Amino acid sequence: MDGSATIPRRLESYLSGHWQAGAGEGATLLDAATGRPVARIGSEGLDFGAALDWGRRTGGAALRAMTIHERALMLKALGLRLMELKEEFYAESLHTGATRADGWIDIEGGIGTLLTLASKARRELPNTRVLTEGPVEPLSRDGSFAGQHILTPLTGISIHINAYNFPVWGMLEKIAPSLIAGVPCLVKPASQTAYLTELVVRRILETGILPAGALQLVAGSAGDLLDHVTGQDAVTFTGSAATGQMLKRHPALVAQATRFTMEADSLNASVLGADAVPGTPEFDLFVREVAREMTAKAGQKCTAIRRVLVPAGLEDAVIEGLAARFAKTPVGLPGDAEVRMGPLASLDQRAEVRARIAELAADARIVCGDPEAVSVVSGDAGAGAFLNPVLLHCADPFAAKAVHDVEAFGPVATLMPYRDAAEAVALARRGKGSLVASVFTNDPDLAAEMVIGMAPFHGRVMIGNRASARSSTGHGSPLAPLVHGGPGRAGGGEELGGMRAVRHYMQRTGVQGAPRLLSAVTGRWIEGAEAQTGTHPFRKSLGELRIGDQVVTASREVTRADVEHFAEFTGDSFYAHMDSEAARANPFFEDRVAHGYLIASFAAGLFVDPAPGPVLANYGVDTLRFLTPVYFGDSLSVRLTCKEINPRETAEYGEVRWDCRVTNQKDETVALYDVLTLVAKTWPLTGE
Amino acid sequence: MDGSATIPRRLESYLSGHWQAGAGEGATLLDAATGRPVARIGSEGLDFGAALDWGRRTGGAALRAMTIHERALMLKALGLRLMELKEEFYAESLHTGATRADGWIDIEGGIGTLLTLASKARRELPNTRVLTEGPVEPLSRDGSFAGQHILTPLTGISIHINAYNFPVWGMLEKIAPSLIAGVPCLVKPASQTAYLTELVVRRILETGILPAGALQLVAGSAGDLLDHVTGQDAVTFTGSAATGQMLKRHPALVAQATRFTMEADSLNASVLGADAVPGTPEFDLFVREVAREMTAKAGQKCTAIRRVLVPAGLEDAVIEGLAARFAKTPVGLPGDAEVRMGPLASLDQRAEVRARIAELAADARIVCGDPEAVSVVSGDAGAGAFLNPVLLHCADPFAAKAVHDVEAFGPVATLMPYRDAAEAVALARRGKGSLVASVFTNDPDLAAEMVIGMAPFHGRVMIGNRASARSSTGHGSPLAPLVHGGPGRAGGGEELGGMRAVRHYMQRTGVQGAPRLLSAVTGRWIEGAEAQTGTHPFRKSLGELRIGDQVVTASREVTRADVEHFAEFTGDSFYAHMDSEAARANPFFEDRVAHGYLIASFAAGLFVDPAPGPVLANYGVDTLRFLTPVYFGDSLSVRLTCKEINPRETAEYGEVRWDCRVTNQKDETVALYDVLTLVAKTWPLTGE
Repeated sequence: MDGSATIPRRLESYLSGHWQAGAGEGATLLDAATGRPVARIGSEGLDFGAALDWGRRTGGAALRAMTIHERALMLKALGLRLMELKEEFYAESLHTGATRADGWIDIEGGIGTLLTLASKARRELPNTRVLTEGPVEPLSRDGSFAGQHILTPLTGISIHINAYNFPVWGMLEKIAPSLIAGVPCLVKPASQTAYLTELVVRRILETGILPAGALQLVAGSAGDLLDHVTGQDAVTFTGSAATGQMLKRHPALVAQATRFTMEADSLNASVLGADAVPGTPEFDLFVREVAREMTAKAGQKCTAIRRVLVPAGLEDAVIEGLAARFAKTPVGLPGDAEVRMGPLASLDQRAEVRARIAELAADARIVCGDPEAVSVVSGDAGAGAFLNPVLLHCADPFAAKAVHDVEAFGPVATLMPYRDAAEAVALARRGKGSLVASVFTNDPDLAAEMVIGMAPFHGRVMIGNRASARSSTGHGSPLAPLVHGGPGRAGGGEELGGMRAVRHYMQRTGVQGAPRLLSAVTGRWIEGAEAQTGTHPFRKSLGELRIGDQVVTASREVTRADVEHFAEFTGDSFYAHMDSEAARANPFFEDRVAHGYLIASFAAGLFVDPAPGPVLANYGVDTLRFLTPVYFGDSLSVRLTCKEINPRETAEYGEVRWDCRVTNQKDETVALYDVLTLVAKTWPLTGE
Repeated sequence: MDGSATIPRRLESYLSGHWQAGAGEGATLLDAATGRPVARIGSEGLDFGAALDWGRRTGGAALRAMTIHERALMLKALGLRLMELKEEFYAESLHTGATRADGWIDIEGGIGTLLTLASKARRELPNTRVLTEGPVEPLSRDGSFAGQHILTPLTGISIHINAYNFPVWGMLEKIAPSLIAGVPCLVKPASQTAYLTELVVRRILETGILPAGALQLVAGSAGDLLDHVTGQDAVTFTGSAATGQMLKRHPALVAQATRFTMEADSLNASVLGADAVPGTPEFDLFVREVAREMTAKAGQKCTAIRRVLVPAGLEDAVIEGLAARFAKTPVGLPGDAEVRMGPLASLDQRAEVRARIAELAADARIVCGDPEAVSVVSGDAGAGAFLNPVLLHCADPFAAKAVHDVEAFGPVATLMPYRDAAEAVALARRGKGSLVASVFTNDPDLAAEMVIGMAPFHGRVMIGNRASARSSTGHGSPLAPLVHGGPGRAGGGEELGGMRAVRHYMQRTGVQGAPRLLSAVTGRWIEGAEAQTGTHPFRKSLGELRIGDQVVTASREVTRADVEHFAEFTGDSFYAHMDSEAARANPFFEDRVAHGYLIASFAAGLFVDPAPGPVLANYGVDTLRFLTPVYFGDSLSVRLTCKEINPRETAEYGEVRWDCRVTNQKDETVALYDVLTLVAKTWPLTGE
């Protein structure tokens, strides 16, 4: 019955299209709570150079052949499938010491991040292979030469070297943006918990949803992996600053200027605002959040609160509150329903944390917990890597050093007093760059002062107050839409942040040329590019419509009667339309002018082709600017040009963006905007 | 009379508020064309640590106290003043070997870049201290918790280590975005041409336009400069890959994760399209551009064309064309009006280029010019660093290595044949990452194929054709609005690119919280934040208006008669408004719907307060989305909220952005958009 008699499973790497074990016996990985063997791991003798090359060629080509929406839909399918398999992952996750709640952050948090990015990609990016970024930049007076930035996927591979604390999330949050960008991935998880990553990769590959070469795994040490990188690859690292700095200086990375993103140590601070005295909801939220951040995943989160900044005089109240919370945080076996905190990842890790606590104790004294005395409600305190929460108090944080420099990666934090907001900001900055800080206050001015003061040193700042008490995602949770990563000590990297994350795997290129050629490159019509007239473009289905399809309308005079009628009809009798004297006193007008909305309305009257057809709806207008006043007697005409065509993968229609230019009888541009329509892929609509 | 008898001037560094010479004799800098001493340089014994600290404290505080527009106006004033002083700079520039045309690129190109960035900052960024980036990210279903990215200036200093070839442009293109961001600068130009940079810095400081500490200069070696960097500093480097890689691995930079941007070697390619045969304008443009890029600044530009890719069979025609151009490029003293190309920067530099040509000759043979035989029309060929253009021909570029790896930083390029567009792309990529490539073609499909193929390996790609022949800024010119920098061998850095350049000196922070507090941090009203009603906000001047000032209007029914009347009045009788059966066949509508423009017009009728007042004009509308169809009988009302207030520094008004939400009787949002107005700072307007 006893597992110690069986030989633990041998983890394999997935490289060059095959699952393969490294040579030799490999190292044995132990269960965090029981100390029993879980798996053996080793990557000796595996050919990383060939694997990287296979990924670049096979995976890269397959991904680049897909559009962004196709890649995003692929990830959506993958995420939904993984969610169905989650219980298997939770079971394996117990070996890491994670409780169900800890596993949720890693497993469902990871899958959720992948699904969020897939969903944002379809909502926020066009269904193309090449992205444009920013506006067309005019580079000549006559419009015959212009610039546009484009983004294309790197032609290499992204290599993700991950930490032991998030074996699932750590992989998924990085491969999702890379795959959406069109860049294949190779994942090297930390050995300690690689069995869970390996299991998830097996299940991912079994789905057959990803193209061959899109995802590879190294189970074991990285060996000579980085010797084979090129300038078209990207390397991300999460882990200790010492290892990260060694990788960053790796000769091949430096020589090739390979993109390198690092997420390392972080002495995250949480600040109790001066207004948040005991009795306020913010005080209670603060105590709850500090306790939660110290104990979730046994404090083994890069974003956990390490420094607890409280107004001088409130230290005792906060210590008391935290002590009460810790008393209600039973430590024990992660699968035990009663347990609120599991063990650390390994006995080595616990020894490491105890050593760090000893360093912190140079500046601070322990006020809760005893690092040497373990108290558990279940499990074998001798075999598992258990540690009860430890809170230190540093009375003079401006004189202290260790508390701002030493990261004890476990259920450990140091409380310190501050006298005013400027001191709180100064102390937060002493972390020398952190992933996240939080501020608990209900005072808008105080929030502004502290957040702006801390911002240059942080990748994320969370404000906690009563209004967001129930909806807040908390101090410690990186979120797919927001940047994750911090400057300085935190490594200087940036992950997530919505579609920023996708752009990290793409090359930005400024393209310059004549509008006709620039338009051919970007697939978007731009001013000065060729246009085609003939059949009214509203008569063309999405399949028939081409960039540059254009209608130039007849002209229509705007009369005084029109303006007065419009004012009466709509109720908009703004003085500039109605009162000649007041209009002339205005610095922009020589006399009464037509309403902007009248101009846009008349323009639609001119360009719309009314009969039923493939144009289904006008769903909006972008960047409308009124550039020249329209006076009574001016004649307007419109040039409407098909600018962007964005077919949806999962609907019978797509978005079409039209460039709409309204001019007067002197050919001056009166208004310029984008008209947004939904257009059917075929007409009549299928199935009607 | 002979300058050799006089002691050349001693260059000084400007550090910690004082001009100071280094200890000792210093090194002597020689005129490129005459070999005579120009200046002595040395930074021995100077206290860089104190200087960095002074800049961070004094300059940083002063710059951060200013708004973005104030900083931009400061740079505008500076640029205009420098333009007045340009002749002094041109005179000094002759010592570097630069002709008037070469000097123009450096001096007026540099000042122009500064002015362009200053102008774009005022046009494209708000007049604030903290920037927001991207949309508000909803983080909870009920809207009580949301996120917004902000950008704050780094609290450190930017250190610019520049190359010898652009002593003016190289400084100005980097300090301009840093100063706009609010980050002080320290510039360390390459010694060889530092006398020109020193002169410009003297003139800049004499204007008194920059606050104390905003700009410092190191004339001489960098010494222990980088030992003092922090994680809040940014280091940029332009120069050789060898030096750049050494700096990148500097222990202090790595330990602090200091931002480091590198612009290094680049074997830029220019491709003649298959359609651009002799006799076409593109062929002539190509030959002219290659010759110009090889000879401008004697080929000492990071962006110069090093690899000339031509369709197989056209090599002789291109060589002939280039030879004819070189014959019309007299080499000699840079101040000589007849001269088209001056010397290299130094004799050492010429020796270096000759050594590189010898390496290239392993793969290619020289077809124009002789690196050893110098022919000049003026000056002393023995004393100056003269070199005539050298063109090599590599018959088998896929077998060759040196031609893709060795950068001869002078008037040197290698011509090589390709067979099809895919080969041209593959050859361009062999540069392993370059600053720029160009393609000469008049064929849109070919342009698209080649540009997209080359893009992942390039920071900029220029397309040349007949339409842009006169307006093109050329292959070699980095432009303020477009990214400068390339991946891989080119260093992986990014400079310029419009306002991207400013963001390089700012920290991006995702801020999360309840809308009220988030709004206080960003200075922008966001959905869910507090609002104030009372006096109609159209009655308030810019000085009186507050974020969150709001009007909620009465409601108005939209009748069938309204829609039919609007259709008749505007001419917009689109079927969805007019034909019940056709509207119902549409997937989005249950029946005839009101026009979007009718909704926006009625909304204005509801929210506008018509009497003369501080609201001067509605100049536009942003991100208008029609979210719910409006059917006959629906009642609309509007909630208009002041969202952003952006006073102009140089006008009696500013922009105000209003959040406009139109709802129906069920409180569903019918339309959501931003209304853009100009509002007077005071009312009545001053001086009227």
